[in-house]
Amino acid sequence: MSSIKIFGIIGGDKRQIFLAESLLRDGYGVILAGFDKLKGQGFNNLSDVRAAALFSDAVILPLPCVRSDKSLNAPFASQNIYFSDDELDALCKKPVFAGMRERLLRVYPKLENAEVYDYAARDDFAILNALPTAEGAVEIAMREYEGTIFGSRSLVTGFGRIGKVLARMLKSLGSDVTVSARRQSDFAYINTLGCRAVNTETMNLARGYELIFNTVPSLIFDEKLLENTDRTALLIDLASLPGGVDFESARKLGIDAYSAPGLPGKCSPKSAGEIIKKTVFSIIEEVNR
Amino acid sequence: MSSIKIFGIIGGDKRQIFLAESLLRDGYGVILAGFDKLKGQGFNNLSDVRAAALFSDAVILPLPCVRSDKSLNAPFASQNIYFSDDELDALCKKPVFAGMRERLLRVYPKLENAEVYDYAARDDFAILNALPTAEGAVEIAMREYEGTIFGSRSLVTGFGRIGKVLARMLKSLGSDVTVSARRQSDFAYINTLGCRAVNTETMNLARGYELIFNTVPSLIFDEKLLENTDRTALLIDLASLPGGVDFESARKLGIDAYSAPGLPGKCSPKSAGEIIKKTVFSIIEEVNR
Amino acid sequence: MSSIKIFGIIGGDKRQIFLAESLLRDGYGVILAGFDKLKGQGFNNLSDVRAAALFSDAVILPLPCVRSDKSLNAPFASQNIYFSDDELDALCKKPVFAGMRERLLRVYPKLENAEVYDYAARDDFAILNALPTAEGAVEIAMREYEGTIFGSRSLVTGFGRIGKVLARMLKSLGSDVTVSARRQSDFAYINTLGCRAVNTETMNLARGYELIFNTVPSLIFDEKLLENTDRTALLIDLASLPGGVDFESARKLGIDAYSAPGLPGKCSPKSAGEIIKKTVFSIIEEVNR
Amino acid sequence: MSSIKIFGIIGGDKRQIFLAESLLRDGYGVILAGFDKLKGQGFNNLSDVRAAALFSDAVILPLPCVRSDKSLNAPFASQNIYFSDDELDALCKKPVFAGMRERLLRVYPKLENAEVYDYAARDDFAILNALPTAEGAVEIAMREYEGTIFGSRSLVTGFGRIGKVLARMLKSLGSDVTVSARRQSDFAYINTLGCRAVNTETMNLARGYELIFNTVPSLIFDEKLLENTDRTALLIDLASLPGGVDFESARKLGIDAYSAPGLPGKCSPKSAGEIIKKTVFSIIEEVNR
Repeated sequence: MSSIKIFGIIGGDKRQIFLAESLLRDGYGVILAGFDKLKGQGFNNLSDVRAAALFSDAVILPLPCVRSDKSLNAPFASQNIYFSDDELDALCKKPVFAGMRERLLRVYPKLENAEVYDYAARDDFAILNALPTAEGAVEIAMREYEGTIFGSRSLVTGFGRIGKVLARMLKSLGSDVTVSARRQSDFAYINTLGCRAVNTETMNLARGYELIFNTVPSLIFDEKLLENTDRTALLIDLASLPGGVDFESARKLGIDAYSAPGLPGKCSPKSAGEIIKKTVFSIIEEVNR
Repeated sequence: MSSIKIFGIIGGDKRQIFLAESLLRDGYGVILAGFDKLKGQGFNNLSDVRAAALFSDAVILPLPCVRSDKSLNAPFASQNIYFSDDELDALCKKPVFAGMRERLLRVYPKLENAEVYDYAARDDFAILNALPTAEGAVEIAMREYEGTIFGSRSLVTGFGRIGKVLARMLKSLGSDVTVSARRQSDFAYINTLGCRAVNTETMNLARGYELIFNTVPSLIFDEKLLENTDRTALLIDLASLPGGVDFESARKLGIDAYSAPGLPGKCSPKSAGEIIKKTVFSIIEEVNR
Repeated sequence: MSSIKIFGIIGGDKRQIFLAESLLRDGYGVILAGFDKLKGQGFNNLSDVRAAALFSDAVILPLPCVRSDKSLNAPFASQNIYFSDDELDALCKKPVFAGMRERLLRVYPKLENAEVYDYAARDDFAILNALPTAEGAVEIAMREYEGTIFGSRSLVTGFGRIGKVLARMLKSLGSDVTVSARRQSDFAYINTLGCRAVNTETMNLARGYELIFNTVPSLIFDEKLLENTDRTALLIDLASLPGGVDFESARKLGIDAYSAPGLPGKCSPKSAGEIIKKTVFSIIEEVNR
Repeated sequence: MSSIKIFGIIGGDKRQIFLAESLLRDGYGVILAGFDKLKGQGFNNLSDVRAAALFSDAVILPLPCVRSDKSLNAPFASQNIYFSDDELDALCKKPVFAGMRERLLRVYPKLENAEVYDYAARDDFAILNALPTAEGAVEIAMREYEGTIFGSRSLVTGFGRIGKVLARMLKSLGSDVTVSARRQSDFAYINTLGCRAVNTETMNLARGYELIFNTVPSLIFDEKLLENTDRTALLIDLASLPGGVDFESARKLGIDAYSAPGLPGKCSPKSAGEIIKKTVFSIIEEVNR
C-alpha cells in the first residue's frame, strides 16, 4: 500500500476538508468529491465522485460513511450521492478508508471483499478523539455555567477514554473532580490523578456538583438519580446516542441538561481531520509492515 | 465597621445577584434595589433604592457604579436611577463599596467625605478577576478556533495579572505558549512556566501562532504588526477599551479578531460576584484591623 | 468478615508499622509481632507471634510474606520466625492478608484451604503503588542528575501502571517526555498526555535523553541498545528483578545506571503502609458484599 | 561588548565547569583557571589565572566571587588565588562578570572603575534560580519524608520568587498546598494557583502540615511558632543564611529541620551554570543595545 500518491476524499464535513488540506501540505495529491457547495470559495481540487474513485490510489470516506437513507454522508454536496457500479468497481481495486465500515457494506455488499478499513473502529482513533471531545465538553461548561471551572465541583461518570482525558483536563483547570467508575483498579487510577472516586453502580445521588459530565453510554441519569441531583447542576451528556440521560425528566425537574455527542467534528473539525489522517496512516503502516 | 448585618445592594447586573445570594447564604440580610425587572422570578428581597440606602448597614454599588449619563448602572431597573438628597445623606453615614469610586464622586460630590471604598481599584480584585478573564478567553478560543487548544501554538502579549494566569492555563491545556513581555525578570518568570518569551518592544512579527491573546492596554496589534501576523490566526483582545488591536486593519487583512473586554461579568457572573464579596470583606477586615 | 476489631500484624518493615499506626488511628486494635528490635522506642502493642495469631480477628503478613529461607520476612525481629502448628491452626480460622500468597502456601501447605488473600496480586494495589514508585524514581533522578528535571529530555520505557504515572509526573515537572510502548492505542494515550511516543519494539537507539527510566520487566537495555544510548544519560531501572538493564554493559560503557526495585517500601513506607491498608479494606468490602 | 570570542573563567565550583562546557558548545573559546585539581580528568582548557585574565575578551568570576579570607572562591584550585597587579590591570580593560560585585570591590578597590557586572544581583538570575532551588527542596522532601508528596499537606512560607515556583511545583505533584504571605494581592495570586493562603504576620501556629518549606529570610520559625508546629512535620529552610528557623529550638522540640541554602549550586550545578551563562548574555545584550 506504500505507493499511495493521490487520495480521493469523497463526502464528509469540515473534518474532511481539513484532512485534505493536511494531506496537500504533506505533498500528496487530493481529489475532493461531494463538496460542490464550496465551489467559488477558494477550493481547488473539487471534482466529481467518478474522478475521485477512479483516479486516486486510495479513497477516504467520511464518518459515518453513509446516512440512514443509504446516500453518502456528504453535507457539502448539493445532491445525494450513491456509488455507481463502475465507481464501486474502482473502489474494489484500492484501499478504502471509511468510518463505520459495516454500514457501508450493508448498502454496498459488493465491497465485502474489497480492502475496506474502518478507521473509526480503532482504539487509537477513539483515544485521540477523547481530547477534542473533552475540550468540547469544557467549552460547553464554560459557556453554560455562570461560574468558573476553577473552584467548581464536578462529576465525571465513566472512566473510559473520554472520562480519563476529561477528568485530567478539569483537574488541571482547578476543578475539584469526582469520577465514577466500576472497578477497584479504576478507583486506584482515579486516585492517582488526585480525583475522588465513587462507584457508578451504587451511586444513587449526585449532590454537591455544579458540573456533571456523563460519558457512559447507558441510562445512568434516569429519573431516580436525577431526583437526587442538584437542580442547579449543569448536566452534559457526552455519550453517543441514545446517551445516558433521561432528558425529559431533567426538563421536568428543572435541571439544565445538554446532549453533546460527536463533539470533535463539531467543535474541532481541524483536529478531528488530523486524527483521521493520523489513523489512516497508522493503518497503512501496519498493513505494510 | 464590624457590625454590618444588612447589606443594601443597589444596581448592577447578574454579578450583584450572585453576590446577594452568597451574602444571604452567609447569614447576612440583603436589600436589593434596582432589580425590579426580575419581579416575579422568585426573587425576594427586592425593594426600592430608598429602603436599600436607609435600612442597610452598608451599601454595595455596581462596577462601574454610574453610566456616562450619570444614572446608576442598573440594567435590571425599569427606570434610570439617581440618588435623591436624603438617599445621599443616608449613604454618607455608612460604608459604601463601589466600583470606580471617582466616577461616583464626579456625579455626587457630596459623597467626597463619605466612607466610599473602591473595590475595583484594588490589586487583589484585579488578580482574582484574572481567573474568570482567562477562562472566558479560553472559552472564546475553544468556540472560534477549529482545532483544539491542545497542540496549538499560542501567543499571549503582556505578562501582567491576566497574562500570568492565561499563560499557565493555556500551558496546562497542552498549548505551546509564547508570552511577550518587556522586562528580563518577566522573561525569566515566563521561562519557569515552561513558556517561550519574546520581547514586546522588538516584536515585529507574530507568525506561526494559531491563537493570539492580547492583554496589553495599548495599540500592540497595529496595522504593521497585523501585516506580519498569520491570516489564519485567531486574535482575541482582552485589554480594556479602547484595547490593543486595530480591528479595522484586522478586518481588511482577513484576520479574525475579537474584542473581549469585561469577561468576568459576562462569562462568569457567579465567580465575579463572589470576587466582589471577597474583596468587600478584605476591605472590611483591613479597616477593622 | 465485617466484625474485625483487632488486627494481628506479624512481620514486615516500616510499611507495617505505618499500617499499624493508621489502623490504630482508625480505632482498630492492633497486635504487633516480629518487631522486638523496636522495643523501648515508644512502641506499644509489641507482642509475640502466638498472641498476634491467636487473639486477633484477622492477620496481616508482609510483602513478600516469606523469605527464600522460608522464615517470615521480618527485618525488625531479632530471630527468624516460623509459624508453629497451633499458630497455623489459628491462622486457618481467620482471614489472612499476605503479599505473595503462593510463597506462603509453598512453605505452609496447611494454609491451602485457609482464607488467605493476596493484597499484592491485585491490580488496584499495583496502581496505587505506581505513585510512590514514580516519586522514588524522580527522587533518584533529582539526586543523581546534575541538571533540573525541568527542561530535561527524558525517556520512559513502558506504558504500564508505573509508566503512566511517571510520564505524567515528569511532564508536570517540565521535562520533555518521550514514552516507549508497543500498541497504537498506547501511542494515542501517550499523545493525549502531551508526550512523544516511540515503539519499544523497533527502538534501536536512545539518543538525546538526559534521563531514562525503564519500567519494562524484560531486557530492554541490552548491550546493543546501550551502545546506542548517550554516555551522559542517567539510567534508572524500576522493573522488578532481574530488571530490564544489562548493568555490566552499562558499567563498561560508562553509563550511570541504577537498579531501583521496590521503591514504595524504601522511599515512602508511610504511603506504602496506607496502600496496604486501603487494599485490605477493599478486599474486606468485596468479600462482605 | 559584542566582540567577545574568548571567555576567561577564573575560580568557582561545578557550576563554572558546566558553564564552560556550555560556552564551548556554543563555539566560544574558554580559558579555565583555578581548576588544577581536575588535571588529568579529561579537561582541556585548564590554564593559569594570568593567562585567563590576559588572553580573554571577558572574564567570569564565581558566586560568591571572593571568600571571607579575601581569596578567590575556587574550591578546585590547589592553592589560594589572589589577583596580582598586572592581572588586575588586565581585568580593568575588559568586562568582568562576577557574583556579589561589592565583595570583590572591597578586596580589590582598583576594580572600582572597571566594567564589573554583578550577575547575581539581577532579578532574572534570582528568578531562574528559583527553579533548581524548588527542585532541590522537593528532592530533600522526597528523601526525608516517609510519605509521598502526593497527598501530603504542605506549607510554604513566603511568596517571593522561590515561594511562587515551589508552591506551583508542590501543587502539580499533588500536594495540598498552603502559602503564607503578607499582602492581599499575594493572597489573591495564591488563590489563583489553587492553594490556600494564610497571613505570615498573624500566623501563630503551623499545625496539620507534614511538610514545611520556609523561604522568608527572617526568623519566622522562632521558638514560639515551633512550639505550635507538629512534632512530626519536616521543616526545610531555603532562606539564605542565617535563615528563618531557630534550629536549636527545633532540635529540642524534636522537629526534623534542615538548613538548605544555595541549592542550585549543590543539587543542579548544570542548570545553575546554564543560568549564569544566560544571565551573562542578557547583560551583554542590554549593554550592547
